Amino acid sequence: MEFSNKELMQKDINYIWHPCTQMKDHEQIPIIPIKNAKGVYLYDFDGNKYIDAISSWWVNIFGHSNEYINNKIKDQLDLLEHVILAGFTHKPAIDLAEKLVKITPDGLNKVFYADNGSSAVEIALKMSYHYHLNVNDKRTLFLSLSNSYHGETIGALSVGDVELYKKTYKPLLLKCIQTPVPKDQTLQSANDALLSLENILKKDGSSISAFIVEPLVQGAGGMHMYHEEYLRGARELTKKYGIHLIVDEIMTGFGRTGKMFACEYAKIEPDFMTLSKGLTGGYLPLSVVMTTDNVYNAFYCDYNEFKAFLHSHSYTGNTLACTAAIATLEIFEKENTIEKNVELSRHMKKNMARFDNLKNVKNCRILGMIAVIELTEIDVKKRVGLKIYEYALSRGVLVRPLGNTIYVMPPFIITKDEIDTIFDTIYNAIVEKL
Amino acid sequence: MEFSNKELMQKDINYIWHPCTQMKDHEQIPIIPIKNAKGVYLYDFDGNKYIDAISSWWVNIFGHSNEYINNKIKDQLDLLEHVILAGFTHKPAIDLAEKLVKITPDGLNKVFYADNGSSAVEIALKMSYHYHLNVNDKRTLFLSLSNSYHGETIGALSVGDVELYKKTYKPLLLKCIQTPVPKDQTLQSANDALLSLENILKKDGSSISAFIVEPLVQGAGGMHMYHEEYLRGARELTKKYGIHLIVDEIMTGFGRTGKMFACEYAKIEPDFMTLSKGLTGGYLPLSVVMTTDNVYNAFYCDYNEFKAFLHSHSYTGNTLACTAAIATLEIFEKENTIEKNVELSRHMKKNMARFDNLKNVKNCRILGMIAVIELTEIDVKKRVGLKIYEYALSRGVLVRPLGNTIYVMPPFIITKDEIDTIFDTIYNAIVEKL
Repeated sequence: MEFSNKELMQKDINYIWHPCTQMKDHEQIPIIPIKNAKGVYLYDFDGNKYIDAISSWWVNIFGHSNEYINNKIKDQLDLLEHVILAGFTHKPAIDLAEKLVKITPDGLNKVFYADNGSSAVEIALKMSYHYHLNVNDKRTLFLSLSNSYHGETIGALSVGDVELYKKTYKPLLLKCIQTPVPKDQTLQSANDALLSLENILKKDGSSISAFIVEPLVQGAGGMHMYHEEYLRGARELTKKYGIHLIVDEIMTGFGRTGKMFACEYAKIEPDFMTLSKGLTGGYLPLSVVMTTDNVYNAFYCDYNEFKAFLHSHSYTGNTLACTAAIATLEIFEKENTIEKNVELSRHMKKNMARFDNLKNVKNCRILGMIAVIELTEIDVKKRVGLKIYEYALSRGVLVRPLGNTIYVMPPFIITKDEIDTIFDTIYNAIVEKL
Repeated sequence: MEFSNKELMQKDINYIWHPCTQMKDHEQIPIIPIKNAKGVYLYDFDGNKYIDAISSWWVNIFGHSNEYINNKIKDQLDLLEHVILAGFTHKPAIDLAEKLVKITPDGLNKVFYADNGSSAVEIALKMSYHYHLNVNDKRTLFLSLSNSYHGETIGALSVGDVELYKKTYKPLLLKCIQTPVPKDQTLQSANDALLSLENILKKDGSSISAFIVEPLVQGAGGMHMYHEEYLRGARELTKKYGIHLIVDEIMTGFGRTGKMFACEYAKIEPDFMTLSKGLTGGYLPLSVVMTTDNVYNAFYCDYNEFKAFLHSHSYTGNTLACTAAIATLEIFEKENTIEKNVELSRHMKKNMARFDNLKNVKNCRILGMIAVIELTEIDVKKRVGLKIYEYALSRGVLVRPLGNTIYVMPPFIITKDEIDTIFDTIYNAIVEKL
């Protein structure tokens, strides 16, 4: 049976409440039903195609319906789709954990599995708090950066600082402190922000369990970028005050910033790292919390001391998701992806040069495979981002600006021609629509 | 390359921190690496097999590596593995939502997707709170049952009441109220508990946003069961006080209690229903929150009124997970599963009769495909459950008692002979080990 976009959209609207969406918008803007996808292209039911320039919410790495990953999942389906991870284990969970320990910063030796980024952040927060309890040091405060985003469940939302997501739920949230994020990518602003951090730690350091940061790039906070010196300084200061450093690499991990993990730029060893999104190459929900032997050992004791970390999700360490993740890491190795991306990033940067001359453009910045065109302040109610979205879509490009910030985060298998198409489209959108 | 259990366990222990586990236990108890599985059987790397009598943490429904589900996932892999669900959609998400709306109680017309049960509970809580804000009625309290379990993220943990999971994190949790769960399955105790509920609502009713319940069976709270009259009464009372009723069917849904959803026993129409676990047949992490047009409409307005529900997870409505869920629901239809399970449940009940005569057994109870043998109170430090677990495992049966409560929750494709094996093993474990 054949379907049209219109038919399917109507059926969709009847039943689905979409995430992060004012559903009334879709009285004007069509919801696009995707029939199939290959590489960077999404195909709808009316025969249109779209370049997925945002990697389907920052998750896809090696393109849609990737043959290598597909085959690995198909093989695994015939063996084992899932098994309880308490008391039991399976080879994909073990192999993935081993690979992750090898490629993440030194010291991160233990892998705790979960299903999505928010849950990973909650686990890191609970582990940090519980660690301190286990060593007789009660610390009930968490510290995060201003303008940060760490997810949507109550704990994760509490350490975030994007008003749009958080404001409504304030009375439900955990009390947290924010310290200013460096205001730009300069060394000076990193040092300024470190002074603020030090002042907060002097005052509240002994009550703070963990400091959680998005390293170098704050995703939902408008792809704001800062200097790596801030991470180095923050690592030193948190160590001094016995505070855990949680590096949330859910968005930045797996090559997105030009290195495998953003914190490699600063050569730091965090106490916790959270990973998701690119972990499975954009295939399946999976997240992990990586931590140190020191943290692990504080929970390791006779059962009857009741110090164990009893957190669980039913699908923890799902076999199929681990399989997708292993296949993804294998492609990184086979294809020498991180190195190849240097050239793609350079090509995006070249494409961005002409935007500096546009009167509505405030700032262009790029780090690895994240290219950002920030427009001048325009009243949020004018919904400039939405105009850019609609324009680009009508020309076969999926971008999804965050307010006035347009960003390009393509799958790593994109070609230079496709990059040109994306930037040409955005350029024309700004010229024609603003 | 061939591996042994021992080799893989060592590698596992080096890298993985298992959920809900005191890792030191595994100095004595082996972690069992599963190589493959088929139907109710798990096979390890040393050639042993185990009947999965707990459906791998209550998720598996139609057996492991089910050919029908496997084939549907393989076909979908060649089309589309995943696409962003904001602005875009896909057929598996639409078809699944349509099916869920059809089979759930009247009034639950909208489907909001997420990845795991905890996240679904958090979404329901946030939606309920936000709904009231949107209609100018600020209600910051949540009500739940004593002895309840709703997940492990901060919000979900806050509405739970199992001390073992919650106590450690008290200072981080949202303030919630508990009302007593009916103390047993009698009508009398349901009515007693309704009186307590009414007293709480008289006092705090106008501050309470939602009352969240596990319908008829409290899973992690020792498979405690209560009479359906409580649900009917709770629905009436919550309606009277303008309080949402959230029915958490994450464990009870998809035939586990003998009906498709436990709340069918009470013929109630809740405001929210949360689903996960069995939803994908035990294949992949996926959860949904179902709600009413009334709730949906309170968020439906012009964007610039800023009333939208902005919650999202990257993998929301994952295409492969939706595909597994559709295949699972199709098997229910094709196989007439709910009806067939009546006979299996009866056979489990028959098997349970002889346990009443054992001196260490306090209570036997069953509802649909959940059979429970509760032992007499024995000091938790004696870890009776662990002894039963080890004994059964050495005889090829995976059970995982909750403290002194042994339960059997098998996949629905189990045979009567396999049921006999499970109960014989448990019987012998109690006789020989206690």
